[in-house]
Amino acid sequence: MADETVSHPLVVFTPSGKRGRFPVGTPVLQAARDLGVDLDSVCGGRGICSRCQITPSYGDFSKHGVTAIEGALSDWNSVEERYKQKRGLREGRRLGCQAKVEGDIVIDVPPESQVHKQVVRKDADDRVIELDPSTQLYYVEVREPDMHDPSSDMERLKEALEEQWGLVELIGDLQIMQRLQLALRDGKWRVTCAVHFGRKRAQGRIVNVWPGFYEGTIYGAAFDVGSTTVACHLSDLRTGKTVASSGLMNPQIRFGEDLMSRVSYSMMNPGGAVQMTDAVREAINALLGQVAAQALVSPDDIFECTFVGNPIMHHLLLGIDPVELGGAPFALTAGEGMVFWAREIGVNNTHPDARVYTLPCIAGHVGADAAAVILSEEPYNAEDMTLIVDVGTNAEIILGNRDKLLACSSPTGPAFEGAQISCGQRAAPGAIERIRIDPETKEPRFKVIGCDLWSDDAGFATATAELGVTGIAGSGIIEAIAEMRLADIIDIDGVVRGSLSEKTNRVFSEGRTFSYLIHEGAQQIVVTQNDVRAIQLAKAALYAGCQLLMDEMGIDSVDRITLAGAFGAHISPMHAMVLGMIPDCDVENVRSAGNAAGTGARIALLNAGKRTEIERVVRDVEKIETALAPKFQDHFIDAMAVPHKTAPYPRLSKIARLPDTPPSPPPNEGGRQRRRRART
Amino acid sequence: MADETVSHPLVVFTPSGKRGRFPVGTPVLQAARDLGVDLDSVCGGRGICSRCQITPSYGDFSKHGVTAIEGALSDWNSVEERYKQKRGLREGRRLGCQAKVEGDIVIDVPPESQVHKQVVRKDADDRVIELDPSTQLYYVEVREPDMHDPSSDMERLKEALEEQWGLVELIGDLQIMQRLQLALRDGKWRVTCAVHFGRKRAQGRIVNVWPGFYEGTIYGAAFDVGSTTVACHLSDLRTGKTVASSGLMNPQIRFGEDLMSRVSYSMMNPGGAVQMTDAVREAINALLGQVAAQALVSPDDIFECTFVGNPIMHHLLLGIDPVELGGAPFALTAGEGMVFWAREIGVNNTHPDARVYTLPCIAGHVGADAAAVILSEEPYNAEDMTLIVDVGTNAEIILGNRDKLLACSSPTGPAFEGAQISCGQRAAPGAIERIRIDPETKEPRFKVIGCDLWSDDAGFATATAELGVTGIAGSGIIEAIAEMRLADIIDIDGVVRGSLSEKTNRVFSEGRTFSYLIHEGAQQIVVTQNDVRAIQLAKAALYAGCQLLMDEMGIDSVDRITLAGAFGAHISPMHAMVLGMIPDCDVENVRSAGNAAGTGARIALLNAGKRTEIERVVRDVEKIETALAPKFQDHFIDAMAVPHKTAPYPRLSKIARLPDTPPSPPPNEGGRQRRRRART
Repeated sequence: MADETVSHPLVVFTPSGKRGRFPVGTPVLQAARDLGVDLDSVCGGRGICSRCQITPSYGDFSKHGVTAIEGALSDWNSVEERYKQKRGLREGRRLGCQAKVEGDIVIDVPPESQVHKQVVRKDADDRVIELDPSTQLYYVEVREPDMHDPSSDMERLKEALEEQWGLVELIGDLQIMQRLQLALRDGKWRVTCAVHFGRKRAQGRIVNVWPGFYEGTIYGAAFDVGSTTVACHLSDLRTGKTVASSGLMNPQIRFGEDLMSRVSYSMMNPGGAVQMTDAVREAINALLGQVAAQALVSPDDIFECTFVGNPIMHHLLLGIDPVELGGAPFALTAGEGMVFWAREIGVNNTHPDARVYTLPCIAGHVGADAAAVILSEEPYNAEDMTLIVDVGTNAEIILGNRDKLLACSSPTGPAFEGAQISCGQRAAPGAIERIRIDPETKEPRFKVIGCDLWSDDAGFATATAELGVTGIAGSGIIEAIAEMRLADIIDIDGVVRGSLSEKTNRVFSEGRTFSYLIHEGAQQIVVTQNDVRAIQLAKAALYAGCQLLMDEMGIDSVDRITLAGAFGAHISPMHAMVLGMIPDCDVENVRSAGNAAGTGARIALLNAGKRTEIERVVRDVEKIETALAPKFQDHFIDAMAVPHKTAPYPRLSKIARLPDTPPSPPPNEGGRQRRRRART
Repeated sequence: MADETVSHPLVVFTPSGKRGRFPVGTPVLQAARDLGVDLDSVCGGRGICSRCQITPSYGDFSKHGVTAIEGALSDWNSVEERYKQKRGLREGRRLGCQAKVEGDIVIDVPPESQVHKQVVRKDADDRVIELDPSTQLYYVEVREPDMHDPSSDMERLKEALEEQWGLVELIGDLQIMQRLQLALRDGKWRVTCAVHFGRKRAQGRIVNVWPGFYEGTIYGAAFDVGSTTVACHLSDLRTGKTVASSGLMNPQIRFGEDLMSRVSYSMMNPGGAVQMTDAVREAINALLGQVAAQALVSPDDIFECTFVGNPIMHHLLLGIDPVELGGAPFALTAGEGMVFWAREIGVNNTHPDARVYTLPCIAGHVGADAAAVILSEEPYNAEDMTLIVDVGTNAEIILGNRDKLLACSSPTGPAFEGAQISCGQRAAPGAIERIRIDPETKEPRFKVIGCDLWSDDAGFATATAELGVTGIAGSGIIEAIAEMRLADIIDIDGVVRGSLSEKTNRVFSEGRTFSYLIHEGAQQIVVTQNDVRAIQLAKAALYAGCQLLMDEMGIDSVDRITLAGAFGAHISPMHAMVLGMIPDCDVENVRSAGNAAGTGARIALLNAGKRTEIERVVRDVEKIETALAPKFQDHFIDAMAVPHKTAPYPRLSKIARLPDTPPSPPPNEGGRQRRRRART
């Protein structure tokens, strides 16, 4: 043993804590590999790529049981010196492939040297994605051809990838074969390959080859194809960093504002689906151009795209007529997670051999966007019973935890998006997004997008002189109606109390119903009785969907509520609960997940394993069809009321801000809203 | 046991002889499947496809141990009657899926009902190919969509293919997804699928879908891409029958007559390789159109293509610059057997999702055509030591048996194709293909292509009046020079004996050398001294290549010689041996294999397993590089002589027709030709 401590020094890696003894002279990279330490290398240890930078520590590390003395690593060598001169190397860093073990040592692997880097997601949680993309780079040295052994360049390339990287059963794309000859000879029999792995890690395809060591990086684009907006994030697949983002209106809008009108367009117009397919593909190619330009990279460096979208967007992207999704039984034509060549689906502003991955759809109207939300939020890994609501023209609702997941879609209609609201508008500068109403005076105060002041702050008029107050955003309408109920301007059935018109001119008659005036300016901003009705219908559909899943799960309340989507990101959880959009829950457990669908697309882009994971989860999700559940109609009618009281939301009472309100009718059992027939 | 003979009658299938007992009421198709009897079915036993026709036999079959009585099968049923009315059913035939076993019975499976039909190859041997193509048809009944179970059409289709046909891990082509919706609904949830299997039988891709039961068939095209001609055979992939054949000149000829001039064209002209790629692909698409039109089928019904060609043709077809094949070390860029989408390699006059398979190349100048010859001739399954020679600008030479295979390529140059021969011409009407010279009078008699008469037959002049005698075909020049040697018009060194000009005006002076006159007509057809020299060089290269492989194999003689290729099909084995082109061998064991490369392409088209087989064989072939073998030059020089004697070819003496010849120099050791320096 005494001998071994000298001939086989102890190497401890941090932060992993992995440790082992290695013969004197073992390169640190080799030791890391033998121990399964996550230390990156593209060049396979040839001192070219510098991905394997490590920081040796010297001193007494009693917690590791090591005393590391100077000289425990081999001397700084010429390869390191050359690299430092050429590209720079931070003080204290060594190249793991050059530094050799000569004594007991503690070696830190800095985050950027880890293969499976943790990529911080840019959202509320700052959660991380482990980097492990489908397309990866490998530098290899290939045997030269030899008349005595007439193997092909491809064979020798594959042999090198197998010997130097353990990659087996590789196939080369045709385009590679067309470029390989020159690349090998220009690179003096050294090339860097991009390999795309499909479903099985073993069956990769070589999708590109660069002569020599490729100093650059490769990119991937994650797309969230919404019916209104197509959004794209471009990520560096080596670092996981998002280097550019852009969005465009979905040009399919010219064929129909909402999903159903696009399905109708396809039904009524032969070739209509093809037109819409072409339109969205054009937008995708334009976006690829935009993000590439933003990031100053060539579209040719984009090797991967991932796509999420609702089933109709999903089918139109793939060139599948969405007509079957327009009516029962809402049959998807194809819904699994699928890999195509980008050019197969008309996406060509990328590397010619780029691959795309479409996340799986859950059901005929619970799409790949909902799957992406699940992937982003991971309720399937949580103990807590979580309700996830993604509000759009259809609300996708997911309920469950690690034991079981349920999903449904509820037809909320376009009211939440401002479509049926008299002063509704898109969330754009000048749109009201926050509103408070004084329960005594019934006077409102509000904020508009693009200005930080409240309307009753000094200087608001000046600050918004140019902006104007142009309408009410989706989030503003939720708050307006909730505040109207809190101020008792509307009653439990949603009727605007006409009697108030005698006390305040904020409430005024319009024919047989009354409206509430929020702002008098260039434009009059009001909430009409019809606006209240439209929101009541929408929120009742959403609530009924949630309730249906809770029934199915056999629960009365949930632990957490997550509001996904752009709309969810902006609404106030408390107001949503006052309005009765979502079930009762501790307000501090209601959070917005921002664009969770987009995040899901980005996760699938950066980590191939997550694709398999979400496919498995989606297979196991229990799909509930609202149209088939007799109780849905009951829940819907129940949920039409605007209870304005803490009783059905006992946990809301924790919120100090809630004004004292007149006593209200006793609640039904189980925290549900009081049953009352809607009068629309 | 007594009970079992009644409740479980004995069923014997012919011709396989497979037998077993089955419960009364078992459909014959089911019994066949259980026993592994090769009985076809596309519809899976639903009485639709009629592929499972069988012929029951009644009577005493003592050799099978069965006495079959009438009534041993269930009665003729309405499905069979309907089928007979609609499409006809031969007398005595039953549908295997309808007829049920009710007593001991002998059942014959006619050849057309066998899945793996034996397809007779149309060549000298009438050998057979077992039919088992990469693309096959499957009829399935698919579950209808159901709101309670929101699976996609694709999922339900795959489920049906798995349940009804045992096909797992299928992937659908995008194009299928785009058509599936309509096909399923038009076919009332019954569809026929075409599935293409790649390397692994388990991983099929659905490449087409037809509503209902597809009554038609699917086709495949086998291509032999030669430097001069591109040939195509269209086969019915259900029956294996060749339904059309066509050929075109390879339009690359405009860039260079022979291979090396095409490589030079590519070297000298940027984009030259692309031009040649485009040219050959255009010819391939034109040929696909021609064969489809001939067979009265739509190119859309062509689902498979296979390609063979020499390495330069192979690379140009795939869009790979052949420049590296133009010089040492003659490195192939990619040579394995490969599957692509037809459209990837610009082959688009097929079904849009058709696949192509390129046979493997053996080495930098032993191509996929040589692999196809091996596949066709199967020397790797033979006991006999076989030499296969495919003569072209390069001769590919293969030697071996089941224990070992060697291959090389020898630079014979274009002389055998008539290119350097003064009166040489392509094998076309009017070209001399057979010639005999009287050893006494030195008078020739000959036959031309397009006329059955010999030139000394009465009526020859009249018969060839229009045709003319235009030149000498490749096969004719071999015979001419061999006969000139047999008639002692040339000596052992190939010198035309000028002294003969005194005896006959067939031999006449042209400057410093002498020529031999074959025909005096509109054109004078002669063999010059230079012609003899050109053939000597070509045949010496061929012989030296054969000798090199025999040295390597450690043998002095071979059991069989096979002459492949169009040229090989026309030359007389005896004359080839007199000339010293090929080693000594019993003349009855020298045969022509016709277009063996084309046959190999057709085998790979009709039987997927043969693709794996030839890939394995090619990996194991030992490649000999003539340029690296010092002995090649020695053999070449040795082989320049035209021995004209039976000594080095002892087995030639068996041929009675051989004239008595003057004694000649003693042979060298081992049956080799006498060493003598060439005087060119």
